[in-house]
Amino acid sequence: MNQEYPSILLERAVSEFAKLPGVGRKTALRFVLHLLRQDDRYVQQFTQAVSKLKEEVRYCCNCHNISDTELCPICADPRRDRSTVCVVENIRDVMAIEATQQYRGVYHVLGGIISPMDGIGPSDLTISLLDERLQQGDIKEVVLALNGSMEGDMTCHYLYRKLLPHKVLVSEIARGISVGDELQYADEVTLGRSIIHRVPFEGANN
Amino acid sequence: MNQEYPSILLERAVSEFAKLPGVGRKTALRFVLHLLRQDDRYVQQFTQAVSKLKEEVRYCCNCHNISDTELCPICADPRRDRSTVCVVENIRDVMAIEATQQYRGVYHVLGGIISPMDGIGPSDLTISLLDERLQQGDIKEVVLALNGSMEGDMTCHYLYRKLLPHKVLVSEIARGISVGDELQYADEVTLGRSIIHRVPFEGANN
Repeated sequence: MNQEYPSILLERAVSEFAKLPGVGRKTALRFVLHLLRQDDRYVQQFTQAVSKLKEEVRYCCNCHNISDTELCPICADPRRDRSTVCVVENIRDVMAIEATQQYRGVYHVLGGIISPMDGIGPSDLTISLLDERLQQGDIKEVVLALNGSMEGDMTCHYLYRKLLPHKVLVSEIARGISVGDELQYADEVTLGRSIIHRVPFEGANN
Repeated sequence: MNQEYPSILLERAVSEFAKLPGVGRKTALRFVLHLLRQDDRYVQQFTQAVSKLKEEVRYCCNCHNISDTELCPICADPRRDRSTVCVVENIRDVMAIEATQQYRGVYHVLGGIISPMDGIGPSDLTISLLDERLQQGDIKEVVLALNGSMEGDMTCHYLYRKLLPHKVLVSEIARGISVGDELQYADEVTLGRSIIHRVPFEGANN
C-alpha cells in the first residue's frame, strides 16, 4: 500500500471510500475527515447501517427488487397488472419509472447488465428467475427498459433471444428527443431513431 | 423517517451516506447499490476501516495532526525548523503545503475553523494547545495559513489577538493572482490585495 498520509488507519479508511463509484482520493479524505469530526455514535450508526443492510438485505422472491418483505409492495399490490413485466437494471430504475406514474405492470430487476469489461455475464443476473416467471405462463408482455448504452443494448439482444421461445410480446421503451429539447442539439442517432419510430400525432387527445 | 424505498434497511444506509458532505440521496443510493453488489468481505473491510479509524485514531501530541505515532513524522524530523509554526485547518492543508516542498517549519493543526454558523467556537479547536507551545518560548514565527473565507478571516483575527502577548512574529500566506492566471478574470478583491502586497521583482534570480 502506497502510504500517502501520516497514519495507516487514515490511509485505509480513505482507500475504502475511494473505491466507491465516482469518488477520488480527495473526496474520500473529505468524507473521512467529516466522519472524524462527528461523535462516536454517529460513526457507529453509519457503519452499522451499512453492515446491517449488507447482512440482512432481502430481495422480492418474484421480481428480485430490494424489499423487507418476501413479496415487494409492488408485486403484492392487487391493482398491478401481472401480465406485463418491465425488465430493469436495478432499484433506481424501478423508482424512476414508478415516479412517472405511467406504468401499472410489475417489474423484473436484473441486478445489473451484461458487461464483459466488468466481468458480468448473464449468469450473474437474475435472467434464470425471469425464465421461471415466464414458464408460469401468466405473462403476456415483457418491456425492456435498460439504459441506452452499449451494455444495455447487448443485454436487450441477449434477453430478446432468451424470450423468443416463450412467445410473449417483447417491447422496449421508446428512444427519442426529450420532451422540451431542441432538435438541433440532439445527437444524430437519437434523432434518427425518433424519426424511424414516429408515432401518430396525439395532439387532439391532450 | 420518510420512507422512499421499499426497504427500511436500504433507507437507513442511504440516509447515512447522504449525511456525508456534498452527497445527495441519489449519489448515496449509488454508493449503497455499489456496496450491495460487492461480496461480504469487501463491505466488512469498508465498515471496519471506518470504525477502526474512529476508535483508534491518534493525534500528534505536538501539532495535533493525525498520526500513528505519538510525535508525527514532521514534528519528529530533526531537519525541520521548530521556530516556525504554520497554523492550518486540517491534515489536508498540511498535505497541500508539504506537496509544495517550500516549507521547512513545523505545523499546528487547528482541527477546524471558527464558524458560529456550524456551532464551532475557539474552544472546539486546538488553540489552547498552540498557546502551550508558544509558552515554551522556542517559537519565533507563526504563519497563518487558513482558507480565505469569512470563517478563515475570523479565525485569523482571533488567533492574532491571542498571539499578541507572546511577542512572536505573526505572518499570513500571500493572497494574489494564481500563477498562470489572467488578470482580467481575477476577482477585484484578490487583484486589489495583490497590488497592495506587491513584492520586489525577482526575475533576475529565477
